[in-house]
Amino acid sequence: MPVQPERFLKDLHALSGFGASGVGKGVVRPAFSQNDIAARKWLIQKIREAGLTPHVDPVGSVWGLAEGASLLLGSHTDSQPEGGWLDGALGVMAALEIARTAREHDGPAVSIVSFQDEEGRFGVTTGSAIWAGTLSLEEADTLTDRDGITFAEARSSMAHLAGNFVDPARFTAFLEMHIEQGPWLDQSEDVIGVVSDIVGIRDMRITFEGEQNHAGTTPMHLRKDAFQTLSTFNTSLNEAFAEVVTPATVWTIGHVSLHPNASSVVPGKVVFSMQWRDADKARLDRMEEIVRTEAMGIAEDHGLQVSFGPLLGLEPVAMDARLKQALRQSAESLAPGQWRDMPSGALHDATNVAAHLPVAMLFVPSINGISHAFSEDTEEEDLVVGLNVLAGAVVRLTN
Amino acid sequence: MPVQPERFLKDLHALSGFGASGVGKGVVRPAFSQNDIAARKWLIQKIREAGLTPHVDPVGSVWGLAEGASLLLGSHTDSQPEGGWLDGALGVMAALEIARTAREHDGPAVSIVSFQDEEGRFGVTTGSAIWAGTLSLEEADTLTDRDGITFAEARSSMAHLAGNFVDPARFTAFLEMHIEQGPWLDQSEDVIGVVSDIVGIRDMRITFEGEQNHAGTTPMHLRKDAFQTLSTFNTSLNEAFAEVVTPATVWTIGHVSLHPNASSVVPGKVVFSMQWRDADKARLDRMEEIVRTEAMGIAEDHGLQVSFGPLLGLEPVAMDARLKQALRQSAESLAPGQWRDMPSGALHDATNVAAHLPVAMLFVPSINGISHAFSEDTEEEDLVVGLNVLAGAVVRLTN
Repeated sequence: MPVQPERFLKDLHALSGFGASGVGKGVVRPAFSQNDIAARKWLIQKIREAGLTPHVDPVGSVWGLAEGASLLLGSHTDSQPEGGWLDGALGVMAALEIARTAREHDGPAVSIVSFQDEEGRFGVTTGSAIWAGTLSLEEADTLTDRDGITFAEARSSMAHLAGNFVDPARFTAFLEMHIEQGPWLDQSEDVIGVVSDIVGIRDMRITFEGEQNHAGTTPMHLRKDAFQTLSTFNTSLNEAFAEVVTPATVWTIGHVSLHPNASSVVPGKVVFSMQWRDADKARLDRMEEIVRTEAMGIAEDHGLQVSFGPLLGLEPVAMDARLKQALRQSAESLAPGQWRDMPSGALHDATNVAAHLPVAMLFVPSINGISHAFSEDTEEEDLVVGLNVLAGAVVRLTN
Repeated sequence: MPVQPERFLKDLHALSGFGASGVGKGVVRPAFSQNDIAARKWLIQKIREAGLTPHVDPVGSVWGLAEGASLLLGSHTDSQPEGGWLDGALGVMAALEIARTAREHDGPAVSIVSFQDEEGRFGVTTGSAIWAGTLSLEEADTLTDRDGITFAEARSSMAHLAGNFVDPARFTAFLEMHIEQGPWLDQSEDVIGVVSDIVGIRDMRITFEGEQNHAGTTPMHLRKDAFQTLSTFNTSLNEAFAEVVTPATVWTIGHVSLHPNASSVVPGKVVFSMQWRDADKARLDRMEEIVRTEAMGIAEDHGLQVSFGPLLGLEPVAMDARLKQALRQSAESLAPGQWRDMPSGALHDATNVAAHLPVAMLFVPSINGISHAFSEDTEEEDLVVGLNVLAGAVVRLTN
């Protein structure tokens, strides 16, 4: 399929003009911002020009629909409050170029989508989660952003453009191209990552409660210090995890709240976040066991109480074998020896779409692994390899 | 000197009626609160009745002055926002009883004092620090409490009672009785602690700066995680300190501030408090070396930057040998084998007074080591032993 790299890059740059930050190639285009809505209107025009039927659903996701049963390509055009020019925009512009080329050359039926609020101004991958049915519209409408604006209010700003939800039955499969947002491809100098799985997440709040005491008069051996207990827990956890993790497993203590958090007081309480991600559900479960066992053991050793908040769980999503095979063959044909299988450590719209359709994803490198920042970038030649690999996979899947 | 324990206990209970919390024997009597001012006015009346000359200085410290050169006894009557009935009140009421008894029996000249704001609504041991000249009145006036009220505004509420600062030259020495506020006496079942030193404090903010990153896409081996670095630093520090500390040395990480403090972000920065206390200046200095060396070493190992805030330093204050000897002899005479030498891990007004006068302190037990809480308490018979030991020391020092 003779996609036109220059046209694709021109569109990608044009899209980055909506909400251009003026810092590098960065963009400021959060879901339902003026810049986001303007970009979506521009996309609707591009869809129309490509000969597809534009459609906006009730939550502001923009669709370009081919007639009959079609393959769905896409991602999202909203950005983080301080975002990069590629992120989801890349996957939407690649989808547009392939769908347009297919129309121009009597190719396969290809539809496209830009889901709304993938970046989570309101929820987590909000637009695709609602479309997939994993989040009800009723519940979504009550979600608020940091300024207290509800999702219901925000989506009303696009209501004049909106029709119904799109029937998933019209699509046969979903392919999403995205930047890696991590350092693996950049470091290995591979140009394509074929995603094997989108990792699952476990996240919970843990609380250690000891005794708040005077930091001058309380001897060390009588303290029940919540920070010391957290530190010991962290060390033990790292040791215990070492037995079960792979190099792709990650875990993070990103939020820590000490009480009373004063330099002259032995902290009596700490609430902290414990998050871990892996592509293997069994490993996620084994890690949960370790988290609970270590936390309870360390708390008991130190004479503190431990309690666990609710466990947030998103299951790993394995990419569809047939779709993945098409991507791998296309990658090997266009970039022989320069691609790899890899899990995605980040969530994507594909996670939700998997509830309706077989899904697969491909990655292009992120320079220095940077994303969600104005400095996010990828070599243009790598973007074009990604476009061609995706187009090649579409051909393989529809011939 | 025939002090009257019942009269002393009656006064102590009467004082606890000012700002009684209604929870146990607790009091709510922060410096310059209505309750505090009422208690100080009551104290002025008691001083007058005892035959001493009442005097209020410009910062609200209340004095009961004997004629000529005199020994000074006292502590403070202000409390923590949620304080115990004893704390500083004990030392002031013991001082009152001894000064009163001395007047009644032609005993030695004894003056008394209740310093203002020992509990640090505004500064740290504010009233005695100003009297000692370690804090200028000009600087103190700009200090604010948590509600933004300045020290200048607060002290204006007692200005109609105030005269000049008292000349330290009229006193020969200072003795302060206080509850221990820690568990040592309670656990050893001793009834008197003769303070050897008031420990010195070192306190500084330390910052580790690494790299803020996506908690899903950043592999463990490429992270520069500020929390993990803090945890490793803490472990190494505890090991290194073990070589130099005594059982009385304490150290505390009581304040931790992670950035951006979100469960899905590898924390790029942590600012935390590092405080340590010991009675030996050389040990405090050695510990500082260890803190800096460990922090720099761990930061380098993990690829982070470390920076140190200004070092807050209060030097240890050794109690005067002659005064201490009088307390020890008095304790051995009244409670043979039931007293001990011990450092004070908490700061006291005596720390400041040492700038002008030889000082010493004695402690009575705190049940379960609890202080700065409504549940703070001491057996009344122990309070009386303390009163008698203090009175005995006064006799020894003035005969």
